[in-house]
Amino acid sequence: IQSKLPGVGTTIFSVMSNLAAENNAINLSQGFPDYPCDPELTQLVTKAMKDGFNQYAPMPGNNFLKETIAEKVEKLYNVKYNPDTEITVTAGGTQAIFTALAAIINPGDEVIIFEPAYDSYAPTIKLLGGLVKTYELAPPDYGIDWDMVKKLFTSSTRMIILNSPQNPTGSILSEEDMKALIRLINGTDVLILSDEVYEHLIYDERKHKSVMLFPELKERSFIVASFGKLLHATGWKLGYCLAPEQLTKEFRKVHQFNVFSVNSPMQQAIADYIKEPSNYIGITAFFENKRNYFRSLLADSRFELLPCKGSYFQCASYSKISDEKDTDFSMRLIKEFGVATIPVSAFYQKATDYKIIRFCFAKENSTLALAAEKLKNV
Amino acid sequence: IQSKLPGVGTTIFSVMSNLAAENNAINLSQGFPDYPCDPELTQLVTKAMKDGFNQYAPMPGNNFLKETIAEKVEKLYNVKYNPDTEITVTAGGTQAIFTALAAIINPGDEVIIFEPAYDSYAPTIKLLGGLVKTYELAPPDYGIDWDMVKKLFTSSTRMIILNSPQNPTGSILSEEDMKALIRLINGTDVLILSDEVYEHLIYDERKHKSVMLFPELKERSFIVASFGKLLHATGWKLGYCLAPEQLTKEFRKVHQFNVFSVNSPMQQAIADYIKEPSNYIGITAFFENKRNYFRSLLADSRFELLPCKGSYFQCASYSKISDEKDTDFSMRLIKEFGVATIPVSAFYQKATDYKIIRFCFAKENSTLALAAEKLKNV
Ligand SMILES: CSCCC(=O)C(=O)O
Ligand SMILES: CSCCC(=O)C(=O)O
Repeated sequence: IQSKLPGVGTTIFSVMSNLAAENNAINLSQGFPDYPCDPELTQLVTKAMKDGFNQYAPMPGNNFLKETIAEKVEKLYNVKYNPDTEITVTAGGTQAIFTALAAIINPGDEVIIFEPAYDSYAPTIKLLGGLVKTYELAPPDYGIDWDMVKKLFTSSTRMIILNSPQNPTGSILSEEDMKALIRLINGTDVLILSDEVYEHLIYDERKHKSVMLFPELKERSFIVASFGKLLHATGWKLGYCLAPEQLTKEFRKVHQFNVFSVNSPMQQAIADYIKEPSNYIGITAFFENKRNYFRSLLADSRFELLPCKGSYFQCASYSKISDEKDTDFSMRLIKEFGVATIPVSAFYQKATDYKIIRFCFAKENSTLALAAEKLKNV
Repeated sequence: IQSKLPGVGTTIFSVMSNLAAENNAINLSQGFPDYPCDPELTQLVTKAMKDGFNQYAPMPGNNFLKETIAEKVEKLYNVKYNPDTEITVTAGGTQAIFTALAAIINPGDEVIIFEPAYDSYAPTIKLLGGLVKTYELAPPDYGIDWDMVKKLFTSSTRMIILNSPQNPTGSILSEEDMKALIRLINGTDVLILSDEVYEHLIYDERKHKSVMLFPELKERSFIVASFGKLLHATGWKLGYCLAPEQLTKEFRKVHQFNVFSVNSPMQQAIADYIKEPSNYIGITAFFENKRNYFRSLLADSRFELLPCKGSYFQCASYSKISDEKDTDFSMRLIKEFGVATIPVSAFYQKATDYKIIRFCFAKENSTLALAAEKLKNV
């Protein structure tokens, strides 16, 4: 049979996690915590199952959860979303991204993405017959020159994908970026898919500039959020999509035929849990401490640490150590030094290689310390 | 914005379940149990969460679960699937259907479906730019004349969707159907998507004729199965897809960018649970008793019961009662008689109306008895 995605192999995250397991390496590759989530949260799942939340949840999501999301969003950003018509619970952030693209992109439509990028964007666009227009960002800052973005716009531009805090670079979009974007899209009907799954993981007292804070952006944006990242339970595969009514209508048309609805007891449990903001409000400091700790551990290594303003991830250059390709270097790190990372070229369709690898620091401090011991030998 | 699915509203299952709730009616519409699932199963979820299964499961599924699925399939059908390369765990049957179609269908490809049909097939095909070629089946037997199917084949035919036991009619495909299908596809490269989510719900000592039993079909089939239906936990949204290696490869390329992976603690719990066949082997008799009980309750009503050879569903003609459209009749059933059902015209793209409604009998006997009391007044 002829493949619709001939160039696509297994996602780098699976490849690296499998290699880590095979080689018994410390896994700082795929982004997930290695410590337990809150037992209070898992007890709420047990309660929800006992309370009978075991049959189909409503297609757009558990009503209590949607209301709780609306409250949380209003509390954090002072922006209102209507739970009935503007919030849809999804089987994780990735499913929200896929569904938003599937609801909007027709063959021939162009979508602008910034690379390095989460590896689902480009293949999903191509699967739908869309064309990927890529703006490659460069280290150390991965900043955006909006005049360059303007050059990518054509009459076929249908959507632009943002991701702040960004995976894999930990860079963030500023107020100025947002204003430049507003000027750029003014007068067009370009839509925005804003992947904000790391919204809470933003450091040094910076504030997350969600697109929802800018009415000119909010009105044309799908915003994707993740409970997995918020609650240290990436394996539960729960997230949500915020979008104005018209966009949500199209999103749900696809959602209902893609997954129909989402895990019912866990939706109820998460609603119970995040109803109480103290259950998640400390997450920023928690991860900022991990970032600081990990950076301090590597300070006297031969890796050069890039800025990390947000996300689970610390990028580092190894160009003082080796001039191998980053795929080769990261393979050697696993096999010879016992630490799994992600080569950042995996986030570029052209495999652009700046000799940078990505570490996930959402790990026990003891894991980070052990990894650093090994990394210092490199 | 221009909709990609302009004719599509909210799925009939949500519409009817919502109307049932609003009107405080007994809900025999959407297919889900109203009784609890086995506490032993929910305890296994609690255990899996405690045991730390809270981060991303492997992309194609928990290994233990995939092996257990392979064992179960071999035990039931004496057919082997390789867990590594031929089994993928999904966020429910619907996600498996969507993903298989998304992996295969290119714009202009034709897909043959039999109606009445589960309402995701046609819009999913259209969303992908495919063309739906519909064969409308008629009551009371909803049998297939394979010479008519042959007439639908063109050089653009890419796939044919089967569903046995069938939702909504409860009809099943026989050995003769399968042999006719084998003759039909012989020499073509048409693929098969076989929706077998009701595989265990087949009555009167008939045996389920899975496509996997016929090597000429197995080699070109995606088979979709549902744990929600097997374990009385439709809200957990877990299922799987069986397909030969080449097809599974394409399936996973899309799966990894659609949902990436599936709820981890529930996968582990389901593996623990179905490892022990006595935990599900009684399901056939359980539902056959419900079917028999429900049919006996309605025997002296004015509804005419159609044959029900499998599935959660009993269809009935109301043409002795009224000549209203089935959408109007089912609305009146909710509002005046307090029983929610599904009008079978909702399963035809052309809303073909044979004056038939669908009851879900996956309910407590007391629920069925109460509903029957009301239905006898009609
Ligand atoms: C969905 S697996 C990848 C998790 C993640 O976001 C990452 O490692 O980048
Ligand atoms: C996914 S909601 C529908 C459940 C079901 O299969 C049905 O009622 O037909």
